[in-house]
Amino acid sequence: MNISLSRIGEIVGGEVDGDGNKNISGAAGFDDATVNDITFAVAPKFLKQLYVSKAGAVIVPKSFSVRGGNLVKVDNPKLAFIKILEFFNTGQKKTASISSSAYMGENFNHGKNVSIAGFVYIGNNVSLGDSVTLYPGVVIEDNVKIGSDVKIYPNVTILERCIIGNRIIIHAGTVIGSDGFGFVPDGEKYHKIPHLGIVQIDDDVEIGAGNTIDRGTFGKTRICRGVKTDNLVHVGHNVIIGENSIIVAQVGISGSVTIGKHTIIAGQAGISGHLSIGDNVTVGPQSGVAKSIKSGETVSGTPTMPHKLWLRIQSIIPRLPEFKKKLKEIEKRLIEIEKII
Amino acid sequence: MNISLSRIGEIVGGEVDGDGNKNISGAAGFDDATVNDITFAVAPKFLKQLYVSKAGAVIVPKSFSVRGGNLVKVDNPKLAFIKILEFFNTGQKKTASISSSAYMGENFNHGKNVSIAGFVYIGNNVSLGDSVTLYPGVVIEDNVKIGSDVKIYPNVTILERCIIGNRIIIHAGTVIGSDGFGFVPDGEKYHKIPHLGIVQIDDDVEIGAGNTIDRGTFGKTRICRGVKTDNLVHVGHNVIIGENSIIVAQVGISGSVTIGKHTIIAGQAGISGHLSIGDNVTVGPQSGVAKSIKSGETVSGTPTMPHKLWLRIQSIIPRLPEFKKKLKEIEKRLIEIEKII
Amino acid sequence: MNISLSRIGEIVGGEVDGDGNKNISGAAGFDDATVNDITFAVAPKFLKQLYVSKAGAVIVPKSFSVRGGNLVKVDNPKLAFIKILEFFNTGQKKTASISSSAYMGENFNHGKNVSIAGFVYIGNNVSLGDSVTLYPGVVIEDNVKIGSDVKIYPNVTILERCIIGNRIIIHAGTVIGSDGFGFVPDGEKYHKIPHLGIVQIDDDVEIGAGNTIDRGTFGKTRICRGVKTDNLVHVGHNVIIGENSIIVAQVGISGSVTIGKHTIIAGQAGISGHLSIGDNVTVGPQSGVAKSIKSGETVSGTPTMPHKLWLRIQSIIPRLPEFKKKLKEIEKRLIEIEKII
Repeated sequence: MNISLSRIGEIVGGEVDGDGNKNISGAAGFDDATVNDITFAVAPKFLKQLYVSKAGAVIVPKSFSVRGGNLVKVDNPKLAFIKILEFFNTGQKKTASISSSAYMGENFNHGKNVSIAGFVYIGNNVSLGDSVTLYPGVVIEDNVKIGSDVKIYPNVTILERCIIGNRIIIHAGTVIGSDGFGFVPDGEKYHKIPHLGIVQIDDDVEIGAGNTIDRGTFGKTRICRGVKTDNLVHVGHNVIIGENSIIVAQVGISGSVTIGKHTIIAGQAGISGHLSIGDNVTVGPQSGVAKSIKSGETVSGTPTMPHKLWLRIQSIIPRLPEFKKKLKEIEKRLIEIEKII
Repeated sequence: MNISLSRIGEIVGGEVDGDGNKNISGAAGFDDATVNDITFAVAPKFLKQLYVSKAGAVIVPKSFSVRGGNLVKVDNPKLAFIKILEFFNTGQKKTASISSSAYMGENFNHGKNVSIAGFVYIGNNVSLGDSVTLYPGVVIEDNVKIGSDVKIYPNVTILERCIIGNRIIIHAGTVIGSDGFGFVPDGEKYHKIPHLGIVQIDDDVEIGAGNTIDRGTFGKTRICRGVKTDNLVHVGHNVIIGENSIIVAQVGISGSVTIGKHTIIAGQAGISGHLSIGDNVTVGPQSGVAKSIKSGETVSGTPTMPHKLWLRIQSIIPRLPEFKKKLKEIEKRLIEIEKII
Repeated sequence: MNISLSRIGEIVGGEVDGDGNKNISGAAGFDDATVNDITFAVAPKFLKQLYVSKAGAVIVPKSFSVRGGNLVKVDNPKLAFIKILEFFNTGQKKTASISSSAYMGENFNHGKNVSIAGFVYIGNNVSLGDSVTLYPGVVIEDNVKIGSDVKIYPNVTILERCIIGNRIIIHAGTVIGSDGFGFVPDGEKYHKIPHLGIVQIDDDVEIGAGNTIDRGTFGKTRICRGVKTDNLVHVGHNVIIGENSIIVAQVGISGSVTIGKHTIIAGQAGISGHLSIGDNVTVGPQSGVAKSIKSGETVSGTPTMPHKLWLRIQSIIPRLPEFKKKLKEIEKRLIEIEKII
């Protein structure tokens, strides 16, 4: 596919500075772009190298003043570049069709343009909106509702009664709606607490590969609009993750935790049960969160502390042997003085 | 379904105090219960609020002395409540049937009331007891033996020769019987150690979603009776987990570790290879266990130390910058003194 | 199957010392071996116990001088033993056949002796080499290329265009080629970065169960020749893992990290994005790698420090309460002195 630079300017809402008739056939990274590709530059170091790039055109910040070459000036070059990338890669969509080797239970409802691959299992009373793609090996249990423009990758399991919104991507191998981890001691043994709630995933969410998201004991585990989770994330029963929060790989969130909006939980962090994490919080990687965190805080460590304090402590810890030695030496000198006076 | 409060008293072995003819149609949490629901109260704060609950009846501790309303008095209100919850939710069981789109190998034996969904694959020489439910996408390889009253959720893999006992639940996406991680250096390269053992899962075990439980190199990896694992737990080859132990989410247990009975390993903890963890041990979250732990101990941290010591250290660590400053100041004062005398 | 001790000597390239006609029918661990089994001994403690073993023959180091019994002397007894183990366990291979309940897309090419189980899904334009075994529930998406002597266990997902080399094992439930975790802020929301790259897995790699290996944003995520990963490992987009490196269970590797050759990343360690880890590096368990590491280093802790320093600090940390007390005491004594002089 070829499009003119002017058309690209229209797509990204930018201003073309150069040859608007220049044909562009692809989008590529700064170092890989060839004469028919468009690329983008943000950091000053890239702006300086503009003339060494072989790219046919470059998307740059509006503030960029140097002239020459084929430029597209926008507010957010990376975002504009991604929109062009998407433009060139729309051809990968699955054709709408329902495989004869898929299984559909009773009372199955679906919208237009659904693509259901072989070995997809759909239980009873399931509904899908428009433009839903179910890859092979997906299992959707009874009474699940799925919205429109949803892509569910291979071998994902969605258990009974869960609700999946619109414009959602769920990556391969993920489990939605497993029972929460709850048991009541019964003498030496444990008695299972039945999990009667659901998982609700709101619009515009992306769930990584190999996640496990438990259903509520009662009520729901809820992943709010715009949340993105990375791979191998564990979300316990009755957790609520607020809008547009980011959960990085291998994070573990215990039962009944509430996380606010625009919060970032970095990789391998763990959050103890029943805590409340505010809005716009950042939790550092591998942190062990053992108490609630107020909105706006940036914390790290185990247990968590203000990130700046944690940084100072990280610089002190490797010096502990030195402090230990110094303490010993000071005591020795003190003893000498005490002998004298 | 409606049952009388008297019938509920019989089911839970409790004493009814109030209207035994009161009809109850469901069970719900304290705040959600309506006039036809039964709920439960344990903590004093809930007992005080009994009269604000709209619940039709409340399960309370025997020791509870206040009269009025419809009460069911038992030793363990939470456990009694769960039994009532289960009573109201028995209707969710799968109908016994073997899907025509399941695959069964040679010499397949099974008991009564088995439910085998579409796209279940069963290898050769597999046996299932009574009331086994295999959800879609489950793969059972050759020579696996499964007992009675077992529920295996979608996309679980159980590899050859593994043994699964009775009254077991295995949640979605879990892998039982993958090869252990063992290699012998062979010059620059590594040579794989074949894994010829099995995984044996004893009665009354519940395995979370997304677990990986490796088979023994020789002999077996064994999950003993009553063990419960949360999601995304890794269990290495030849590990033994003793009866009624609890393994929380994202714990990693290296090869040949032995864990005793009634032990709790909290979330994201890791245990190095070949260690022995005793009975009634508690290992704190994110702990790094690098040496064996005796029965009855409660440990935390990396490496592990007594939990109480760890708590004190956690309170000291954020004060390290202060101690560093104090040390410097003391030395200064010492120098002053040394000048004088 | 029975083979003579002489034949075993030939297979492992060792020297037989004893009865070359002795028939051996199996291989077993030191304590389990019976009169028809061969076992091996390396550690001095085992060599001393040679005469208590009931084994029919023992593989020992060449340096071992004591005579008597049936010995096979080799450079690397463990490696030799494993080769004999493999010899006795070749019977477990799947018969070559393509199940009638597998699905193959258009333009499917495959070599000799392929075994494709039921409910395997293969997209369009997929090629397999010779002796490839695909277990049930495996999903191979469009345009994937797989070499020869490859074993892919149940419920593995390999997404479009990924390249899998020769002599590769991928354990159950693993996902190869999920999208990387990349988003561009777009006001309050995040805009997904399309992931157009692939995952390339080179020859002689073994990938554990439940791994998630993301595709490159552009270009590739590459697992080089001879790498072994344990279970539940996360590998981000555009990561490169060098030849013969070892990644232990539950490690998380963020996007664009480069790891050298012969490096070991121990269990539950995490590596921040865009770092470079050299050759022959060892990263301790649960370490949090926040800066690049030079070749040959052995590091531990969070953030990482030389392993020896970390060990000293681990011995100091439990003594912090003692140091705190000492510091207080010293200051008191200092004040006393200051009063006097």
